[in-house]
Amino acid sequence: MRIAVIGAGALGLYYGAMLQRGGHDVRFLLRRDFEVIAGSGLRVTSPRGDFHLDKVRCFRNPKEMGEVDLVLVGLKTFANDALIALVAPLAAASGAAILTLQNGLGNEELLAAAFGADRVLGGVAFLCSNRGAPGTVHHLAQGPIRLGEFCGGLTPRALEIAAAFTSSGVPCEAVADLVKARWEKLVWNIPFNGLCALTGRPTDALLSHPPSRRLIEALMTEVVAGAEAQNLSAPIAGPAFIARMISLTEEMGAYRPSMMIDRLEGRPLELSSIYGIPLERATERGVEMVRVRMLHALLDRGEPG
Amino acid sequence: MRIAVIGAGALGLYYGAMLQRGGHDVRFLLRRDFEVIAGSGLRVTSPRGDFHLDKVRCFRNPKEMGEVDLVLVGLKTFANDALIALVAPLAAASGAAILTLQNGLGNEELLAAAFGADRVLGGVAFLCSNRGAPGTVHHLAQGPIRLGEFCGGLTPRALEIAAAFTSSGVPCEAVADLVKARWEKLVWNIPFNGLCALTGRPTDALLSHPPSRRLIEALMTEVVAGAEAQNLSAPIAGPAFIARMISLTEEMGAYRPSMMIDRLEGRPLELSSIYGIPLERATERGVEMVRVRMLHALLDRGEPG
Repeated sequence: MRIAVIGAGALGLYYGAMLQRGGHDVRFLLRRDFEVIAGSGLRVTSPRGDFHLDKVRCFRNPKEMGEVDLVLVGLKTFANDALIALVAPLAAASGAAILTLQNGLGNEELLAAAFGADRVLGGVAFLCSNRGAPGTVHHLAQGPIRLGEFCGGLTPRALEIAAAFTSSGVPCEAVADLVKARWEKLVWNIPFNGLCALTGRPTDALLSHPPSRRLIEALMTEVVAGAEAQNLSAPIAGPAFIARMISLTEEMGAYRPSMMIDRLEGRPLELSSIYGIPLERATERGVEMVRVRMLHALLDRGEPG
Repeated sequence: MRIAVIGAGALGLYYGAMLQRGGHDVRFLLRRDFEVIAGSGLRVTSPRGDFHLDKVRCFRNPKEMGEVDLVLVGLKTFANDALIALVAPLAAASGAAILTLQNGLGNEELLAAAFGADRVLGGVAFLCSNRGAPGTVHHLAQGPIRLGEFCGGLTPRALEIAAAFTSSGVPCEAVADLVKARWEKLVWNIPFNGLCALTGRPTDALLSHPPSRRLIEALMTEVVAGAEAQNLSAPIAGPAFIARMISLTEEMGAYRPSMMIDRLEGRPLELSSIYGIPLERATERGVEMVRVRMLHALLDRGEPG
């Protein structure tokens, strides 16, 4: 499969590298790491074995990336103002499917409005990775990617993309109900991204502090209620799901979510996709996520989100 | 009136200085500022006129302070473990009344359990002051002190103490319902102390940020509901009271509440008296202050409170 990776942060670099190692023709749109990766390749460290890609197809401009079958979007959502312009040349040159693995809600809608709903898929990635020195990405742990059509339903295309990931060593499942997958991911993202960013404490410090742990559970319960109002194909089974999210997080140790790292490094936060739009969607369906709204207000410093 | 000031921070130093200048026999229990104030007196800067007290009665040990008519307690509540031992020698030596102007709830109960409920008065101080160099206190602005008997009702003693303050240039009103006065102060303290400490932003930055302003109003509404459940002598009239609190705060400009300064200077926070005990009192009466509990969890780092 010919794949263009747009937004080559920790997620895009890792998945792109795995897909290339798996035999696919991967092309990276790069900024910060262009010189290093074009010159000496891309290095991945991982508990499952380090590897190095000597030759990596690097581009500075999406117009030069040629025709592809899949556009893989890993851009931070606070940069979504640039999203359409980055994807447009690739979408124009081909009938490529566009898969966004960005955080939160609203990304598929943005792509669908520009390129047509039937071109768009979305997915949630349970991935712990971060960027090291230029040209290096550290992979720490992963759960499966769950991806699905923006228009819903299981399609051959979704299954084919999922198979490309899985056969490249990235477990991936195609799901019929993308909305449900997105909200299930929010059950984790909303408490942990925000609370870790706000307090400067990693996940284990919060979970071992009883008032914070109760707050995490209360936030998760609100998000499940917001999710259940979205006409999901099946209920989430809140208490069991929440208990599983907490126990998975405990296994991750002193994890620093992406939003905490964004704040520590002075970047904007992905507030609109992880908080603003989910709050709107819940309110539209009559669910007030009181603590989620408070967390959003506490995180917001008037930055672009 | 013979007055012992216990806990001579910005509040104790300022009120003690005003009472001494007003002709009262004031004795200060000092630690940090002892040498400087014993040697060269106490300086007060104020928009209402600076002044200097050349001779100040300073003590390091409450046992040496002699017999007094009033013990004025200004200790930070996170130091309440030491409160009874500090007051005990003064309470034993005389029939002194004990007035706590400390923040939040629970202070009168502590004193009442040790010295008898009929000895105890409490008050809320609307005071902007902070300590400068040793021997100097900066007075910025003040509203009236409102004080009352722990056992309730207007007594000659409460009126006499109020008159001592007022005639010394500190507006002071005796009230029959101390519980109401305490909760009304919490309507201000709970949002502003906590949010400013948590975000590191002064009051005006929060009020000019619409999501934070709405959060402040929501927190105040919760505290009013908690207050109304406490068998007050009269309702608080929430919306008008909240609007007045906000507009008074706007007049204060870029104010940094005491808890924000405590956090910036690495001191413990007054969490139990301003959050923990009010939350308990509300819950006992069936009122869940959801956002207040969340703010408490976010502020708590397991310090003594």
